[in-house]
Amino acid sequence: MSFESFLTTDDFSGYEDPEKYKRDWLPKVEKYRQDLEDGLLSEYTAELPASIDVLASKGFNPLKYLYDAKLLTEEEFKITDTPASELVEKLAKGELTAVQTLKAFAHRAIISHQFTNCALQLFVTEGLERAQYLDDYYKEHGKPIGPLHGIPISLKEQMDYKDKITHGSYVSKIINIPGKHGVTTQILENLGAVFYVRTNQPQTLMHLDSNNNFIGLSKNPFHLGLSSGGSSSGEGSIVGFGGSAIGVGSDIGGSIRAPAAYSGCHGLRPTTRRISTNGGISGGAGQESVPAVAGPMGRSIEDLELWMKTYINDGKPWELDQWCIPLAWRDVPKPKPTDLTIAVMYDDGLVKTTPPIARGLKETVAKLEAAGVKVITFEPIKTKLAYDTVHKMYACDGNYKQRELLSASGEPLAKLTKWSLSYGDGAKSYSVAENRKLNIIRDSLRQEYTDYLIDNKVDFILSPTYNNVAPKPEQVYNWSYTSLFNILDLPTLTFQTGLFQDPTKDVWDESHASYTYRNELEKLECSTYDPEAFAGAPIGFQLSGRRYFDEEVIAAGKTIVEILDVNLFNLF
Amino acid sequence: MSFESFLTTDDFSGYEDPEKYKRDWLPKVEKYRQDLEDGLLSEYTAELPASIDVLASKGFNPLKYLYDAKLLTEEEFKITDTPASELVEKLAKGELTAVQTLKAFAHRAIISHQFTNCALQLFVTEGLERAQYLDDYYKEHGKPIGPLHGIPISLKEQMDYKDKITHGSYVSKIINIPGKHGVTTQILENLGAVFYVRTNQPQTLMHLDSNNNFIGLSKNPFHLGLSSGGSSSGEGSIVGFGGSAIGVGSDIGGSIRAPAAYSGCHGLRPTTRRISTNGGISGGAGQESVPAVAGPMGRSIEDLELWMKTYINDGKPWELDQWCIPLAWRDVPKPKPTDLTIAVMYDDGLVKTTPPIARGLKETVAKLEAAGVKVITFEPIKTKLAYDTVHKMYACDGNYKQRELLSASGEPLAKLTKWSLSYGDGAKSYSVAENRKLNIIRDSLRQEYTDYLIDNKVDFILSPTYNNVAPKPEQVYNWSYTSLFNILDLPTLTFQTGLFQDPTKDVWDESHASYTYRNELEKLECSTYDPEAFAGAPIGFQLSGRRYFDEEVIAAGKTIVEILDVNLFNLF
Repeated sequence: MSFESFLTTDDFSGYEDPEKYKRDWLPKVEKYRQDLEDGLLSEYTAELPASIDVLASKGFNPLKYLYDAKLLTEEEFKITDTPASELVEKLAKGELTAVQTLKAFAHRAIISHQFTNCALQLFVTEGLERAQYLDDYYKEHGKPIGPLHGIPISLKEQMDYKDKITHGSYVSKIINIPGKHGVTTQILENLGAVFYVRTNQPQTLMHLDSNNNFIGLSKNPFHLGLSSGGSSSGEGSIVGFGGSAIGVGSDIGGSIRAPAAYSGCHGLRPTTRRISTNGGISGGAGQESVPAVAGPMGRSIEDLELWMKTYINDGKPWELDQWCIPLAWRDVPKPKPTDLTIAVMYDDGLVKTTPPIARGLKETVAKLEAAGVKVITFEPIKTKLAYDTVHKMYACDGNYKQRELLSASGEPLAKLTKWSLSYGDGAKSYSVAENRKLNIIRDSLRQEYTDYLIDNKVDFILSPTYNNVAPKPEQVYNWSYTSLFNILDLPTLTFQTGLFQDPTKDVWDESHASYTYRNELEKLECSTYDPEAFAGAPIGFQLSGRRYFDEEVIAAGKTIVEILDVNLFNLF
Repeated sequence: MSFESFLTTDDFSGYEDPEKYKRDWLPKVEKYRQDLEDGLLSEYTAELPASIDVLASKGFNPLKYLYDAKLLTEEEFKITDTPASELVEKLAKGELTAVQTLKAFAHRAIISHQFTNCALQLFVTEGLERAQYLDDYYKEHGKPIGPLHGIPISLKEQMDYKDKITHGSYVSKIINIPGKHGVTTQILENLGAVFYVRTNQPQTLMHLDSNNNFIGLSKNPFHLGLSSGGSSSGEGSIVGFGGSAIGVGSDIGGSIRAPAAYSGCHGLRPTTRRISTNGGISGGAGQESVPAVAGPMGRSIEDLELWMKTYINDGKPWELDQWCIPLAWRDVPKPKPTDLTIAVMYDDGLVKTTPPIARGLKETVAKLEAAGVKVITFEPIKTKLAYDTVHKMYACDGNYKQRELLSASGEPLAKLTKWSLSYGDGAKSYSVAENRKLNIIRDSLRQEYTDYLIDNKVDFILSPTYNNVAPKPEQVYNWSYTSLFNILDLPTLTFQTGLFQDPTKDVWDESHASYTYRNELEKLECSTYDPEAFAGAPIGFQLSGRRYFDEEVIAAGKTIVEILDVNLFNLF
């Protein structure tokens, strides 16, 4: 896709086949939807204050309503608003049972789904059986089964789940029922996690939003008129809403960070090869120019660390997936603010940030500086080249695999599916020689950023996660802020700032009227902003560190949210 | 290449241009050869007992002659027959100077070159200046400059060297003079190494032999009628001959292990991403389906370990090359024989081993078992698929890059250049989608081998490095035994067994006459074997461990050569 010709470069003939879809596939989809409906156990559902459409049009905040209307019991609130890093201790000491814990989260998860449409599969009854098993184990052995004993974890649907349909939002895969868990799911289960929900994601897994032919869009837990992001869309909704203790997403262009930023939680895109993506559906199988990564989403940085540390050090993913490196998770102490040097990218040179992002970044930097952090300005390094290259990498098989997966069912294409199929040169198939040239560009970019960080003694790059706060449904076009760190493969934390869009403050300044757009994408993105429509949307940024130094990013993230005084367990 | 149609699938038109080559390039090559000639300082040269051609025809052993004819002084023998791991201590204590050390190795290196044609560039005078600088540093500071202070290290020419022609055996690159060292060269220099020789390699870097248009073939230091292997050809010769303390090679299909096995030294092909290949000439730039790796060659396993440990832990390659993982080198104790479980691959199912290899493996296994090692038979897992896939990966850009590098000068193509250009589907350019399918096959193979090792509690796979001992010049066709471990990316040590081909023992057994070849490649390889022609060729095997567990491979290698009672410093 060039900035000037998007939505025009791919040829979509041969993808859709309405007749075949309706005849052969839609009945399966309808059955699937019914199963989801059946998973909404009546003892956990809430009565909604109005129809979702009405609530969405009013910018309703379901998370605030959860507290205001006291939709959970006091105990349920207490459990679901305890960080996972504390829950594991309570479970290990026997102060909480796994059943008690799951019931609380399941209640909140089901309400989350009622409001945000976050789940593709709900199987609380199975989860309760597993929780009971863990409680029995605990009673028998006097100790937890593993370091995540009894922690309710939500899973992006894309990951293989033993004996359950796993479709990755491709209708053609609704007939796919894996005989075993994907590696990451298996490791988490080995560590003691409890599963009860698999979450929504967009068709092709290549939107920063969530539309698909299964259940459609997921909604923002802070504002039902906005998107929860994508492609780990349901994870954004459910984790932001507090319906799971930790969520698992995956990210090839922003798919953990965008939903985390939009939906009011934190999320880590780890460096590649630390977390397994083995076993699951993907349109990018065998693509290693810019590999997808899996990673955690949560409401505290400590929870992300708990997940990473136990997953790596106890889960030993390299024993189950040859792709993973036996690089142990190191305990890195939380740095003092004065130990940190952070380079801030206020603008990536491609797409201008909207008022809440510009204000949020300014306020965040002011707080960091006041706390003693050394902040310098980061002048973007070849972001246009990075953008063009990574977008070509996504599509350089000429969308061969996507076409195969989509055309098998003839399902209708979502708006943003067409958008992402137009990336790079769309349907143009690259030769291997051309792909190798892209890899050489990528490696030179990676080296340039590595050199920048080391030569300038800069610890981290702080940047917007997206040029805007959570977008309106199906109005997120620009990946430049997130995909930059995919092509660079830098571990990147999206953290919440505790700031929210404020229509009274977040209006374009006077200069905007005479601003000359640098490209059509920028114009399109800026045109979607309207102060009133985004009231209360969370503001989250990215912190990127050196490749494979995920530990330092997490440690600094703790310092930063402490400086910003962010507490996502106590918002309303 | 299929076994049935090799040497026929590529189109070689457009590569060669004799007129252009002779007019524009040959004069440069001749100047280069003269520079090499000028580097043979007269105070270090020896008088040869006959012409090289005559010696080669007699199967002359120059290493034995070195001792028999006392071509070095006693002190020079003592220094050059001390392991690098001990030299560093002597240098650090001031018991040896860097100048003294280099002079001894330079003398042996130059004699090595006279016999084996191992060097592309010799710059002993520069090396002596560097050594003097190190001695001055030591005097001034009372300590070594780094953990490899004063160690003479030979370098495969392919790696960028500051201000020196770096051509990778492509004539078109004879005009390439890098402004800085490649990363690995730079790290070794930072650690205190002394450079004085850059060594030979084949055209395209894709032969397990050494022919090129610069200086032609390198010879085996144990038998001048045989090949020293390739593509780290000159490293095989010089390290086997003792002309450098440690050599640096690189390996994408066997290029460290073949020359180590043939030329009578040890060599490690590390797991990818631990050692940098950044900065150098390669026809595979941007190719990451089966990446090349750099690694050490030496005369003791301890020396390989010294190189790996200091390179990684002190050199921190991840700070200079984004490709490298910050995975520290772990100190792994030498295992007891009884702690080891080794699966032996006697035959890979593709190409039958010649009598010395079959006998050598049998004798080696007997000694290991006698020492208490648990030995089981390894039944090859999908070796044909691995062979086909990795060979397609080498050429799947349709040899685009090779064609570009070769046709720029129009240089004549060597026999084995045509052979390797015929790999996979030769000149057929693959699409990205096809490349991705190869990657998926590769990953499933890697997983299968990983699962095999873990599920069966097998520590290592022991296998031939090649179906034969060192081949006759330009008669090495089969890569199956080595390239298997490239596609699997398993760290693989080639170690010497202390055994040598023996014409009285190593004849085909009776059954061979009625043996039905499984494919044309096997027939071709077996046809080159003739007991008398290989007298005294070293026998070296491979030990492969789990991906990224290079430390365990090295540790077990120490145990094994101890069991086999191998001492390469004391052979004649």
